Amino acid sequence: MPVPMQHPQMRRALEVIQGFNDWTVQQQVELTEIEAPPFKEARRGEEFKRRLEALGLRNVRVDREGNVIGERPGTGAGPTVMISGHLDTVFPEGTDVKVKRSGARLAAPGISDDGRGLAVVLAVARAFRDANVQLPGTVLFVGTVGEEGPGNLRGVRHLFGPNTDLPTKVDHFLSVDGTGFGVTNGAVGSHRYRVTYQGPGGHSYGAFGLVNPIHALGRAMALIADIQVPSQPRTTFNVGLISGGTSVNSISATGAMDVDLRSESQVSLDSLDRAFRNAVERALQAENARWPRSNARLTVKIDTIGIRPAGAIADTSRIVRTAVAAGRALGVSPDLGASSTDANIPISLGISAVTLDGGGRGGGAHALDEWYEDTTTGYQGPQWAALVVAMLAGLR
Amino acid sequence: MPVPMQHPQMRRALEVIQGFNDWTVQQQVELTEIEAPPFKEARRGEEFKRRLEALGLRNVRVDREGNVIGERPGTGAGPTVMISGHLDTVFPEGTDVKVKRSGARLAAPGISDDGRGLAVVLAVARAFRDANVQLPGTVLFVGTVGEEGPGNLRGVRHLFGPNTDLPTKVDHFLSVDGTGFGVTNGAVGSHRYRVTYQGPGGHSYGAFGLVNPIHALGRAMALIADIQVPSQPRTTFNVGLISGGTSVNSISATGAMDVDLRSESQVSLDSLDRAFRNAVERALQAENARWPRSNARLTVKIDTIGIRPAGAIADTSRIVRTAVAAGRALGVSPDLGASSTDANIPISLGISAVTLDGGGRGGGAHALDEWYEDTTTGYQGPQWAALVVAMLAGLR
Repeated sequence: MPVPMQHPQMRRALEVIQGFNDWTVQQQVELTEIEAPPFKEARRGEEFKRRLEALGLRNVRVDREGNVIGERPGTGAGPTVMISGHLDTVFPEGTDVKVKRSGARLAAPGISDDGRGLAVVLAVARAFRDANVQLPGTVLFVGTVGEEGPGNLRGVRHLFGPNTDLPTKVDHFLSVDGTGFGVTNGAVGSHRYRVTYQGPGGHSYGAFGLVNPIHALGRAMALIADIQVPSQPRTTFNVGLISGGTSVNSISATGAMDVDLRSESQVSLDSLDRAFRNAVERALQAENARWPRSNARLTVKIDTIGIRPAGAIADTSRIVRTAVAAGRALGVSPDLGASSTDANIPISLGISAVTLDGGGRGGGAHALDEWYEDTTTGYQGPQWAALVVAMLAGLR
Repeated sequence: MPVPMQHPQMRRALEVIQGFNDWTVQQQVELTEIEAPPFKEARRGEEFKRRLEALGLRNVRVDREGNVIGERPGTGAGPTVMISGHLDTVFPEGTDVKVKRSGARLAAPGISDDGRGLAVVLAVARAFRDANVQLPGTVLFVGTVGEEGPGNLRGVRHLFGPNTDLPTKVDHFLSVDGTGFGVTNGAVGSHRYRVTYQGPGGHSYGAFGLVNPIHALGRAMALIADIQVPSQPRTTFNVGLISGGTSVNSISATGAMDVDLRSESQVSLDSLDRAFRNAVERALQAENARWPRSNARLTVKIDTIGIRPAGAIADTSRIVRTAVAAGRALGVSPDLGASSTDANIPISLGISAVTLDGGGRGGGAHALDEWYEDTTTGYQGPQWAALVVAMLAGLR
């Protein structure tokens, strides 16, 4: 696939990105230092909106879900491309998000995930402006809300949902998330549930013979632990959190677990989901059957914590080939992978979508010691994103 | 068995108990209003000691474990009898222990368990003094520490242990605990453990295939849930509390449960204990075997929370027959039962011991709304205890 490295405006865009690299890193630092817990992204969103406006984008706005969107109209005939980072972090209110510099290392919660993505989005917008890049297609520059666990992809769900505020169809979606030079074209789907067994509870000795919610939970956990899953497509299960009981000598009134089911394949995920529900039901029946003379019966409820659809964009698709070719033209060799990102939603809808890493190096995502190093080639992150956007938007 | 209801001193003692009944209830209220959490019984103990001294007992002291002991020397030839209530409650520091009166009802945490027992012990001491009851055997009036769960019977363990402070052998032990007119001659034994599975933990998707401590725990719980136990002698098991995990999408580094095993029979309890340990070990092996390619192995540890030996004093034993005959002479019909009380320790050592209810009516033991009603016959509680002590100490 030809990569327009010699296109004059594009060449200029790549040059300016390298030139204003300190500015890009500064965007990353300043946005990271504004807290953005799940469902509380508004302050960071307002600042991101202000910066999109300062870069000359049109019709910059916050949609009903909280996503920030700015437009760069195309010359008319090309596909519409959306490039986004996510505004939210996993960290609760009150987390110290001040960036600590130590040599080349910048450390702060959220500095890579996804301070980096937001900075890359801004750098692409600035480069297109500074280099006066004319593109056939319209580019939408976006900061999404709700990418992390509790948000359950609410931002992209709204963007691609029936009540979207977008005036136009999106032909290609790029999420920029984290660090490195990988392409995520597999959408790892996840089903997350809280399972709660309930009974009357009572004294461990006096009421023995009563159905026991914690024992039912254990039966379910044991059955889940032995579910067989394929290694290809990669499919996983986990009982991550358990709770129940008030004292060693009381039969608890409840027993609960949070369960995470994941797969690269929606078919495998749905199959795992059925096995999980079967385990929950069989455990209920087994515990109730264990105590036929109990004057109470256990009940169970399954509450949904989050559902993320699985899927993949083929390695041979235009968007994946574009991302790989653009990376190679810059001297990096992107690997393809699967993960759970904002791209899950458009991928599940059959829309051309991938997630690009943002360049540089990072670590400790979701941990308080999260860090980022721009290295000597950090600027290649926004260069890569700019090239991919331009190619998808019709630059030849 | 003859009951010395017509013995002049004894008859007088029973009369004065009825006469000073308001004083007895006042002892119960005042001692209840001094907090006595597990391991923090000292303040209530000091006040109890002061009251034993005021009743003319000899050599009143606090032993090395914290038990309060006062002596009433006998005339020389009779058996030594100990009568005790327990100082501790299940309630933590800061619990509101102010007694609320509502009609005939007194409500406060610990008012029945074992404010009642302590009041009965004081009433017996006062009656013997006021009626100048001469007994062949010495009577020891005691407030014990550590009867409730966390204390694990540490008070009576010390009294009957190798390092006891007592100068004399105890021939008969009476614990007065709670309300009603039952006799506890079966010592329900209990083994309580915290089981903790441990592994490295990791990401639910990225590290899938790693041994999982919570899954191992579930396997153990499921195996425990199916242990078969006899209904006679009554034998029970309970997983009362579970914990583990930090988030739905992390493989936890630990999974833990608190387990309660009980039986009226030490043989059955030991058999249950072996089945429990077998379940814990099999679950460990099953989870480790489930992931042969995991580069880590789970471990498990079993920490002892408490061990209380089981046993029983025969229904035909002197102490049981004495308690039943004395109750009947007062017009009540004591039932025999099994429970876990201070009497467990002497019973397990082959010492003549039972626990007597303290009379009156009560409810909500171990709950914040615990209550006591003295009814019209509450005074029969201390009357009964006084009769039993006197008979065991050789009064004819």
